[in-house]
Amino acid sequence: MIQHPAFKVEEWSVRETKLHLDVLAQTESIFALSNGHIGLRGNLDEGEPHGLPGSYLNSVYELHPLPYAESAYGNPESGQTIINVTNGKLIRLNVEDEPFDIRYGTIHSHERELDLRNGVLRRSVCWTSPAGQTVKVTSTRLVSFTQRAIAAINYEVEPIDIPMRLVLQSELVANEEISSKQDDPRAASTVTKQLASEENYARGMLGLLVHHTQDSGLRIGAAMDHVIEGPEEMAVDAESSPDIARISVTTKVKPGEKIRLTKYIAYGWSSLRSRPAIHDQVIAALSAARMTGWEGLLAEQRAYLDTFWGHADVEIEGDPQIQQAVRFALFHVLQAAARGERRPIPAKGLTGPGYDGHTFWDTEIFVLPVLTLTQPSAVADALYWRYSILDQACERARLLGLKGATFPWRTIAGEECSGYWPASVAAFHINADIAYAVVHYVGATNDLKFEQEVGLPLLVETARLWRSLGCEDAEGKFRIDGVTGPDEYSALADNNVYTNLMAQLNLRAAAEAVERHPKAAHKLNVKDEEVKSWLSAAENMLLPYDKRLKVTPQDENFTEHEVWDFSQTKKDDYPLFLHYHYVHLYRKQVVKQADLVLAMQLFSSAFSAELKARNFAYYEPLTVRDSSLSASTQAVLAAEVGHLQLAYDYLGEAALMDLYNLEHNTQDGLHMASLAGSWTALVAGLGGLRCQDGSLTFAPRLSKGITRLVFRICFKGRCLLIEIKPDEASYRLLDGDPLQTWHHGQKITLSTKETTTRPILPIKAGAPPRQPAGRAPAHRESVYDSSSGSSNSMS
Amino acid sequence: MIQHPAFKVEEWSVRETKLHLDVLAQTESIFALSNGHIGLRGNLDEGEPHGLPGSYLNSVYELHPLPYAESAYGNPESGQTIINVTNGKLIRLNVEDEPFDIRYGTIHSHERELDLRNGVLRRSVCWTSPAGQTVKVTSTRLVSFTQRAIAAINYEVEPIDIPMRLVLQSELVANEEISSKQDDPRAASTVTKQLASEENYARGMLGLLVHHTQDSGLRIGAAMDHVIEGPEEMAVDAESSPDIARISVTTKVKPGEKIRLTKYIAYGWSSLRSRPAIHDQVIAALSAARMTGWEGLLAEQRAYLDTFWGHADVEIEGDPQIQQAVRFALFHVLQAAARGERRPIPAKGLTGPGYDGHTFWDTEIFVLPVLTLTQPSAVADALYWRYSILDQACERARLLGLKGATFPWRTIAGEECSGYWPASVAAFHINADIAYAVVHYVGATNDLKFEQEVGLPLLVETARLWRSLGCEDAEGKFRIDGVTGPDEYSALADNNVYTNLMAQLNLRAAAEAVERHPKAAHKLNVKDEEVKSWLSAAENMLLPYDKRLKVTPQDENFTEHEVWDFSQTKKDDYPLFLHYHYVHLYRKQVVKQADLVLAMQLFSSAFSAELKARNFAYYEPLTVRDSSLSASTQAVLAAEVGHLQLAYDYLGEAALMDLYNLEHNTQDGLHMASLAGSWTALVAGLGGLRCQDGSLTFAPRLSKGITRLVFRICFKGRCLLIEIKPDEASYRLLDGDPLQTWHHGQKITLSTKETTTRPILPIKAGAPPRQPAGRAPAHRESVYDSSSGSSNSMS
Repeated sequence: MIQHPAFKVEEWSVRETKLHLDVLAQTESIFALSNGHIGLRGNLDEGEPHGLPGSYLNSVYELHPLPYAESAYGNPESGQTIINVTNGKLIRLNVEDEPFDIRYGTIHSHERELDLRNGVLRRSVCWTSPAGQTVKVTSTRLVSFTQRAIAAINYEVEPIDIPMRLVLQSELVANEEISSKQDDPRAASTVTKQLASEENYARGMLGLLVHHTQDSGLRIGAAMDHVIEGPEEMAVDAESSPDIARISVTTKVKPGEKIRLTKYIAYGWSSLRSRPAIHDQVIAALSAARMTGWEGLLAEQRAYLDTFWGHADVEIEGDPQIQQAVRFALFHVLQAAARGERRPIPAKGLTGPGYDGHTFWDTEIFVLPVLTLTQPSAVADALYWRYSILDQACERARLLGLKGATFPWRTIAGEECSGYWPASVAAFHINADIAYAVVHYVGATNDLKFEQEVGLPLLVETARLWRSLGCEDAEGKFRIDGVTGPDEYSALADNNVYTNLMAQLNLRAAAEAVERHPKAAHKLNVKDEEVKSWLSAAENMLLPYDKRLKVTPQDENFTEHEVWDFSQTKKDDYPLFLHYHYVHLYRKQVVKQADLVLAMQLFSSAFSAELKARNFAYYEPLTVRDSSLSASTQAVLAAEVGHLQLAYDYLGEAALMDLYNLEHNTQDGLHMASLAGSWTALVAGLGGLRCQDGSLTFAPRLSKGITRLVFRICFKGRCLLIEIKPDEASYRLLDGDPLQTWHHGQKITLSTKETTTRPILPIKAGAPPRQPAGRAPAHRESVYDSSSGSSNSMS
Repeated sequence: MIQHPAFKVEEWSVRETKLHLDVLAQTESIFALSNGHIGLRGNLDEGEPHGLPGSYLNSVYELHPLPYAESAYGNPESGQTIINVTNGKLIRLNVEDEPFDIRYGTIHSHERELDLRNGVLRRSVCWTSPAGQTVKVTSTRLVSFTQRAIAAINYEVEPIDIPMRLVLQSELVANEEISSKQDDPRAASTVTKQLASEENYARGMLGLLVHHTQDSGLRIGAAMDHVIEGPEEMAVDAESSPDIARISVTTKVKPGEKIRLTKYIAYGWSSLRSRPAIHDQVIAALSAARMTGWEGLLAEQRAYLDTFWGHADVEIEGDPQIQQAVRFALFHVLQAAARGERRPIPAKGLTGPGYDGHTFWDTEIFVLPVLTLTQPSAVADALYWRYSILDQACERARLLGLKGATFPWRTIAGEECSGYWPASVAAFHINADIAYAVVHYVGATNDLKFEQEVGLPLLVETARLWRSLGCEDAEGKFRIDGVTGPDEYSALADNNVYTNLMAQLNLRAAAEAVERHPKAAHKLNVKDEEVKSWLSAAENMLLPYDKRLKVTPQDENFTEHEVWDFSQTKKDDYPLFLHYHYVHLYRKQVVKQADLVLAMQLFSSAFSAELKARNFAYYEPLTVRDSSLSASTQAVLAAEVGHLQLAYDYLGEAALMDLYNLEHNTQDGLHMASLAGSWTALVAGLGGLRCQDGSLTFAPRLSKGITRLVFRICFKGRCLLIEIKPDEASYRLLDGDPLQTWHHGQKITLSTKETTTRPILPIKAGAPPRQPAGRAPAHRESVYDSSSGSSNSMS
């Protein structure tokens, strides 16, 4: 657990007060800017030093071969990996003869600030060159939420004490050299293929490069335009070559004067459009941005975020660090999704190349549920992307001998890119996860147009999958055998409870959607008999129960297996998958990430309160959290069964995953699911919010460290404001018609007219569960000393 | 099912009367000669045309990378593959200006004969060159059983009608070009690395090449010497270059004269010995061979085979094709094992590059049990090889977090070479399979010296593995979860019955061996407590039983799974693993190869007769035999439960696997396990022989087609002769002290003095079981028309 040594705790910012080169890559992820369409890592303006240079465009990838030591039917042979595209962020500065490079000379101050309220990254440096010239450099960078093709940088240089000659070189650079070689399977594949140049252009203040990928058939245009303010006498030079476009400004600046460069960057890409079309597209985007102007872009950005925070903000009293972390989390989740517009939301957003830029199931189960209640339009878009790859998923199902659709475990463009099938092809739950996200979104928005157009086909084809995947046994129970659930330390198990509950929901939801949209269903060739078979499978779904232990087994034989010998597992042996063979892990009771516990979160009413408590107590000592997809779920259930301090501890882990680099791979990009999970840990955990069958329920209970929790959510076109204090909770509608909900099981009706306040019911929790030795979450202190920015029990 | 169009049915030969180039590769495997040390494919003397040139030396391999689309802990990253070494078989012939090449000119006759009695491959060709010269070429090739480093060829050319100038070029050629690219996972890996030359030499009649492998660290020497008889005037020329040594003989031969070249070839290889040492070793081997002479080598070969057939022959009346096939099978099994001497017996012997030349579990379970009763010394050697890689197996167990030893699923030199772990690492049964072979060998030989030196360490370390792999459940039953049994269409299942029974035997056998060899066991650090824990695990071994169906499930949940939809499976969909994803196969009741049925063969007394009948009836409709490791086992159990025609059908399939190329991959090498299985189908099937707990029992019953079956076996230092007729069976000892055995459960004592004859008890079989549609074995006609060499119901 590496705490960044210089982050300050502030309500609306992540501020780094000193540059530490050893954690540069981590900060590049944390300071990444994105609108879901374009993503720019927080690389220094001058390009070097860097941890990992990164400019990403949603769904711009290259192909690479997926090799196998032994060939087998159905293995995907081509993988997709996100690529670092033309870098438009670069602004190099020469101070007299010296390039501005913080590895040389003297840094007097260096501050970077990710401003969550304004949606910009600010930087301020005071530097003396090796030759003795001192300058103040400030830059502000944004990736526009309102103009999705646009990023912009405002870059200012001010000489201190003496006049000096400054040269600014603003560039577009394609095919940057990246040195990266890692053994960790979670890191990115190495693709060394170059982008092929199609056009390069530089004239006046404008530069442009068009390239295409070698094998994936994508054309990429990047262009830049500039506005320069400064001394009257300035020489501007424009030049370009296949991989570089450069605008140079040379001038002499006196103390008290400054030179100010505003750089507008536009990206466009397509698998279909021609080079001239892409060229025109980026030039047009630049024109619009220039007309808006820098101040205009800033104002639009602020307005966009005002709206977002207005219906999505979470306020916390008692723990400023969590306050900062949850806003940081919401901001990045928004950045990953805001303008994706029918493109996928990758596991790392567009903040780094980790997991090859792929999208997995956690988008649907961890990220979309948060967006459903905070930025629902982004959910419709993300699910539209799933719909856009439905044909590929149906084709893949045919290849696997199944009906309906099997969505890829990991992909960018829709093709399965996983090379290890027991943890991908066999993890069929991804199909129900998508269905779940559809159901959850439609339940929270009543967006019936979406349901008919997008939701219904997704629900129908995934229901068809489940019907063909499972079978009725001799006693009529519907079994789903040989599948892998969320816990990746078990695989190919029979009747994974999470999977079976999800399939049950999927089958029922498809039947209900068919009933609501009979004409659209008819077009999908859905027959009454088929719907009946779905309902029968759902009705008879096998949900195993261990009578001896009085707990729900994660899968049919799970509780019969040997318990992992935690006493012999050393601290350095985690994460286990890097130190133990899967044959060892799969055979034993050891849980990588919440599986049955996740089922209890998503299907709260399928388990009695007593069973939830027993199950939670059973799985806690088995769960090692070798995945970032676990702490938030454990937080939610810990809160539900009354272990409020434990919930608080898990909340801390989820919320600080990236700010503290708890998994040691934040350099590869941020963990979107864990970021989203920190919201979930607060709202579903301490807030006790559940959203099932189109209804909201609350059972709030604060942990000791948090004295007040306020959150806003969007639900059925309304905005709700919920305020929780240690003894009572208040509910109010900010707009819309009255809404019925439940507080600790008691029905309440909310309206815009009055605040409904109810006392919090106490809960008697059992004995605190134990976690595997060394794997308990860091204990979070109840009283946080806000005067010290970095003091924390997790350091 | 391709029947070779020109094989004749003879008692002691496989004779091909016409050359068919389309099945050349298949015949190269069938006509391969080997002594277990050296293997030469049946390539034509002149080298071309060829299906696949092949000269193999036991354990001479090269390394190649094993790639993975996703890396994971414990995956082997380097594979071993058998390589085609220096070809010593080459004798090129020039007739006047024309090279002797059967693709040109006119073939008047072409016959090849594998002589199973004399252990030689003969060839006789009458050919007219494109220029009109006619020659008769005859060659006889052997790989010596008595001089293991030696192969020899007698090559004669006789001009017909007119005198002509002949040039013979006898060669050693390294780094032959091989073009081969296949998608079938059962074929060999492509390794393009060249052998590196160290020495080349040619003088007089002698040529020599020394090379080394690039990465596996092996040095290989090949040398040849010649004796030439013919016209007085002959010019001999010797030349060599790094990859070629060539002795050329030029002469003019008249009709009635002939030229006769005897070529002696010696091979030597080592990972330790120096170039001069290897050089001297092959020259010395050549000297000995030259002194023995061609006739001497032939006589030694015959004598060796006289001894072998004297205690191992099987005689059949009523089915000459099976008669031929079983002798062909025994001959090749002998060739694979005879002089391996502490080196492995690969799945294909040394007949081809299939499966990369690896040794698997089937050597212990299919091949060694046959050799145990026919050539026991070869079994001791093969198990000594396992002992020689025990340290590597122990190291691998440590890597996997286990105790004792885990032997590699596939290997040449001891390191795991499997790149797909669910069907390799998880198939832990290989460890008990080795233990089984030890127990079976010691039981049949009373070789206590072997047991102490080799058997005990193997038994102890494998017992330790099982003890650490399994665990006691809440009810005290010993479970072995998450493993793969013999059936490769299931994987990672709990309590596979075959595995658990084998582990039980392994644990008990280790305990018994420890008791017999306390001092040796002490050196292995075996404590009383440990032995007790083995016995307790064996005693409490969980053996699931399905009370509803009254059958033994292959593994704990197997009979709960959906039955494969055979009605929707087309004929071209087999083998299923080339047309269906493993995720599909593993989840369902579909059996690639006998698994529970194999358990019933090896653990006959663990199942009641009624249960065996029910189990056999249950698994027959599920078993598709997509593996050559199944028909013989099904033959044995079919016979036991009384389905004698079915047993006969399976016997036919096992026996004709390679002669008829039933699996379409005989070109890559012969299926040693299936060849051995044809003996087992006869002797354990129709002969009803079982060997358990050191005792032999017989329950013979002939199928209708076979009117008399005679077989010899070696047991506890004696040779037994068993003669079975439709109504009675006769038993006689050919040597040694009296022996007690059982006939249909009745105790009988055999001696050299008299023949014991007993009537055959009839059995009432249930209804004939059905096989999956299209997967029944070919029906074998009861009355065989021996006048036609190729008529057969399987064609």
